[in-house]
Amino acid sequence: MVLSENSLISRIKAVENHRLPRHRFIRIGIGDDAALLRPAVGHDAILTCDWFLEGTHFLRDRHLADSTGWKCLARALSDIAAMGGRPRCFLLSLALPKTLTGQWLNAFLFGLRRAARHFECPLAGGDTSRHQQILIGITVMGDVPLGQAILRSSARPGDLLFVSGTLGQAEIGLAELRAGKLRPARFSFRHRFPLNRLSASLRKHLYPQPRLTLGRWLAKNRLATAMMDLSDGLSTDLPRLCTASRVGALIDGAKIPLSAGSANPASSHPAPVSLSTHISAAGLIRSRDPLASAMHGGDDYELLFAVSPVRLSQIPASFRGIPLTQIGKITRSRTIVVSLPGNRKRPLRSAGWDPFQ
Amino acid sequence: MVLSENSLISRIKAVENHRLPRHRFIRIGIGDDAALLRPAVGHDAILTCDWFLEGTHFLRDRHLADSTGWKCLARALSDIAAMGGRPRCFLLSLALPKTLTGQWLNAFLFGLRRAARHFECPLAGGDTSRHQQILIGITVMGDVPLGQAILRSSARPGDLLFVSGTLGQAEIGLAELRAGKLRPARFSFRHRFPLNRLSASLRKHLYPQPRLTLGRWLAKNRLATAMMDLSDGLSTDLPRLCTASRVGALIDGAKIPLSAGSANPASSHPAPVSLSTHISAAGLIRSRDPLASAMHGGDDYELLFAVSPVRLSQIPASFRGIPLTQIGKITRSRTIVVSLPGNRKRPLRSAGWDPFQ
Repeated sequence: MVLSENSLISRIKAVENHRLPRHRFIRIGIGDDAALLRPAVGHDAILTCDWFLEGTHFLRDRHLADSTGWKCLARALSDIAAMGGRPRCFLLSLALPKTLTGQWLNAFLFGLRRAARHFECPLAGGDTSRHQQILIGITVMGDVPLGQAILRSSARPGDLLFVSGTLGQAEIGLAELRAGKLRPARFSFRHRFPLNRLSASLRKHLYPQPRLTLGRWLAKNRLATAMMDLSDGLSTDLPRLCTASRVGALIDGAKIPLSAGSANPASSHPAPVSLSTHISAAGLIRSRDPLASAMHGGDDYELLFAVSPVRLSQIPASFRGIPLTQIGKITRSRTIVVSLPGNRKRPLRSAGWDPFQ
Repeated sequence: MVLSENSLISRIKAVENHRLPRHRFIRIGIGDDAALLRPAVGHDAILTCDWFLEGTHFLRDRHLADSTGWKCLARALSDIAAMGGRPRCFLLSLALPKTLTGQWLNAFLFGLRRAARHFECPLAGGDTSRHQQILIGITVMGDVPLGQAILRSSARPGDLLFVSGTLGQAEIGLAELRAGKLRPARFSFRHRFPLNRLSASLRKHLYPQPRLTLGRWLAKNRLATAMMDLSDGLSTDLPRLCTASRVGALIDGAKIPLSAGSANPASSHPAPVSLSTHISAAGLIRSRDPLASAMHGGDDYELLFAVSPVRLSQIPASFRGIPLTQIGKITRSRTIVVSLPGNRKRPLRSAGWDPFQ
């Protein structure tokens, strides 16, 4: 197939052709040298970009093209959620082999468009190129009312640490995918993808839900002193929050919320719990210890946030069906310690996702 | 070398550590989930992203790492210039093989930092990953006073078409590079790169200068009805402007400004001029016909703009040393025609840069 860059852009442009309540934010979208946007008065802008690369973040022969489209945007939106912001538009940088500009691209754009509608974040522009592997870069612009952004750097000793949802489930979904529980060829190019036929873990891995509404609610009500999203695993991300805030943390291993059906071994067994597992870029599977997955597994896109003790009573047990779980507290000492059954404590060892490890 | 993502980010963060007059635009830079920015009141935001991929846009063994750093930002800034805007900050998406995280990365960041300072566009964030090839994505955010942005879509029949600078020189520089006129190994990792030892063509290819000041001046004084930058070659880019504006154009081949030292064959020879040459993604060299290079050569990053006849007298012959040349006019018919010596006219055939051709 001979395809020009112009015709590729025309097909991508179809993604932006949907009515979204905030389309007025975009003055000029695809088709000019750059997007022209009208920022809301009284707001700060939020800007983030995220790689989504074949071989590193997804596998062409395992991951559905439809899911690739959804997930590349959803995970970038998670950074907006982590600031307490609202997404306004995104740019798509896409490089493809020529052979994928047919069905694969159609399914990818279908998933991307569904995510753009669902999260009310329209496409405003981008860049295309050719490459032997699929390369995706997503830039999201969002905003937040002045003074409401929640940073990583403002946690204080004594604050209580919360996570949304459950941890580790996306990694279990990755394990299921690699174990062959999904056959992409059967689904990839179907436009109406049967989401309800996926396990909860596969759904979480393939179609993550950034916690945008929760993030905005926490920001608007000034309930969190610090926040970030969990994309690389708690054991990698929590140290980043602590370093930014110049604090430490004490985590109660028994309180880590595991995915439904996984008993927390730290809350029942006095036996040692393995926290030493690993995942590689191409997706070696971590041992099936659900606590290890919860501590180190990536791709959950849940929110990790700190709450001042005086605000504690305002944090509900769940927000619109998403559990909010207190897993520990911020400490003055610059270490991160996990308490385990039998009064054992051990330093947290980072073993989450790192593309360079 | 074992390098973590955190330590890579620390090294990239050094790029943002420079004092720029408009650093107050960035409220929170690298180190949080996303950048937090304070848009200027009374301005529209401009957002653009640009691939710069090894093998497609540059060659690791031919292009200096220092130049790669400069050029990836400079070419993205050209899209801001094309809207008449001012750059405010950029995001760097970088994926590298582990083996390049030493000297190559140092030299790359050095060139990038120099460009960021020169164009007053500080680094505000980004994303890093690992990949077997060098992948670079640049997102630039800029702004323009309300109502001053210059679009592609507003050229009117009768407007006069201008280009800045000369055309085709960057392609001649690419030819020189491929002919071995530069030995990257001798220079790549030197921090003080001897720019004055490069030919003018190599300088234009390796260290392009986006026309930011000219673009802003045209916007502020409302001198251009439509504008875009020439990144893929006049024969590819002009049809985009005409399509967006629903107009055509008549170009005077004899007026195309060629690089210094190249006589315009269309202005002297009545012999047929070849406009049918090509360049491939990996850099096959176009025939050395300077007019063909000027018509089809990419990477010039000059501005193409339309001027209403009533504003013509306000366009100087040059702006701060950059020639401004009238090369034709906008027509009502939806065709693009090039006039050549001997009263010959022929339709313009696109033969510029297209990654999918």
